[in-house]
Amino acid sequence: MSTSARSILYVYFSGMTRLVICGTGNVARHFFDAFHSSEEVNVVQVAGRNRQALAYFDKHTDTTEDFSGLRKADVYLLAVSDSAIATVARQLKDGLVVHCAGSTSIDRLPEGGRRGVFYPLQTFSKELKVNFNNVPLCLEAENEADYRVLEDLAHSISGKTFRVRSEQRLDLHLAAVFVNNFSNHLFHVGQALCEQKGLPFEILLPLIEETIRKIRYMSPFEAQTGPARRNDIYTQQLQLEQIENKAYQAIYKSITHSIQKTYAEEL
Amino acid sequence: MSTSARSILYVYFSGMTRLVICGTGNVARHFFDAFHSSEEVNVVQVAGRNRQALAYFDKHTDTTEDFSGLRKADVYLLAVSDSAIATVARQLKDGLVVHCAGSTSIDRLPEGGRRGVFYPLQTFSKELKVNFNNVPLCLEAENEADYRVLEDLAHSISGKTFRVRSEQRLDLHLAAVFVNNFSNHLFHVGQALCEQKGLPFEILLPLIEETIRKIRYMSPFEAQTGPARRNDIYTQQLQLEQIENKAYQAIYKSITHSIQKTYAEEL
Repeated sequence: MSTSARSILYVYFSGMTRLVICGTGNVARHFFDAFHSSEEVNVVQVAGRNRQALAYFDKHTDTTEDFSGLRKADVYLLAVSDSAIATVARQLKDGLVVHCAGSTSIDRLPEGGRRGVFYPLQTFSKELKVNFNNVPLCLEAENEADYRVLEDLAHSISGKTFRVRSEQRLDLHLAAVFVNNFSNHLFHVGQALCEQKGLPFEILLPLIEETIRKIRYMSPFEAQTGPARRNDIYTQQLQLEQIENKAYQAIYKSITHSIQKTYAEEL
Repeated sequence: MSTSARSILYVYFSGMTRLVICGTGNVARHFFDAFHSSEEVNVVQVAGRNRQALAYFDKHTDTTEDFSGLRKADVYLLAVSDSAIATVARQLKDGLVVHCAGSTSIDRLPEGGRRGVFYPLQTFSKELKVNFNNVPLCLEAENEADYRVLEDLAHSISGKTFRVRSEQRLDLHLAAVFVNNFSNHLFHVGQALCEQKGLPFEILLPLIEETIRKIRYMSPFEAQTGPARRNDIYTQQLQLEQIENKAYQAIYKSITHSIQKTYAEEL
């Protein structure tokens, strides 16, 4: 019987997936907290180069700085920086090795071994606990048996799993940059504009919340309003002159142009 | 006793503000619904040029197409398009006349009369009922007595009132364009990127919701993550090449540049 078949049988009979997490950063911590609370997963080890960062996990599980002698597990989850994925993966000898990066193909993992992707589509910060139950987990594997292992692992912490190929995941990650990173910067611009006139950022929060609430009921395409949408050149010109910051001006122009193009195509 | 002093006394003694709403669009409807449910306000009339649109109000209050013979009221609320504000206001003879536009100065209303601004910082759509209790109402008047009339009117429907001068309001409206109109377009871009790869928009919603949840606990400045924030030129280059739509490319560039500038200045 192959090692791979034995691992799958182990999962099947014990009912508990043995997991090793490689990495000690934000994503590693959030995954650890979630899996550690799950009754279907046993986090047997956390591996990382930073001894100090390992202290976070020490009380709850075995930790090591040595990637070459990791414990036996069903899944090795690489929660390391994109550029370290290939290097760390090469040191692993056995088991299903998965990374959790948005922009990295499954092919970055060594050929020949069992490999997959376990990408959480969410933004993580040290300060805020994430409710994984609501986090879409985007899974990829090279065969159905491995996919089922990942699906079980995913279902142990989240109600939302999606099968996403590497090539789709690239666009998904790009979409995430637009809706998360970029809109967060627009909120920063809003705050800067308010504060330079002595107005508190709080005044904008209900509007931001309503912007989100709307798109649960209609598409962003339908929800669009504002000077660009109604082709109000007069207000656009006034607002452009009003903006002192050149970088904000460039944002105003590029998004206004894109909105006009979006709706012009519909005529 | 002046007409103005009489009006204020009327409000004081009757306890009910008499309101005439001019306009029949989205904002007029939402204001009408809110004030009509309030026990402190009596909407005595709705005026509009569009007979068909007046039908919405007919059952509940008096309506008219003739702006020159409006009923006596304490406040005349102009919920008309920015370009119609001056024209409509000139036809009113008495009372406190207020417009509710973000980008229009109080000076657009006729000099000599009592004037003010009653600007709701919110996005309104026909389909969704708005809970005014959470809508910041930005008020402006030329004297304390008039300001108090507007404040009472505002408190009858909302818990959030702000004193905002015309010059501040211009920046506030600009900030609203960034956080509402522009981020909504980024959500549309996210949806377009997903759908061209056969992924449902729903996969992005938890991320969008978390983006908003974060800024209740930290500033957008602190919450910023992503390739631009960590100056990851490699991912930026890859993503730029990945975007086929030229307008989306321009957005990617302008926001990435602005994020880098924002954090470079902090070094």
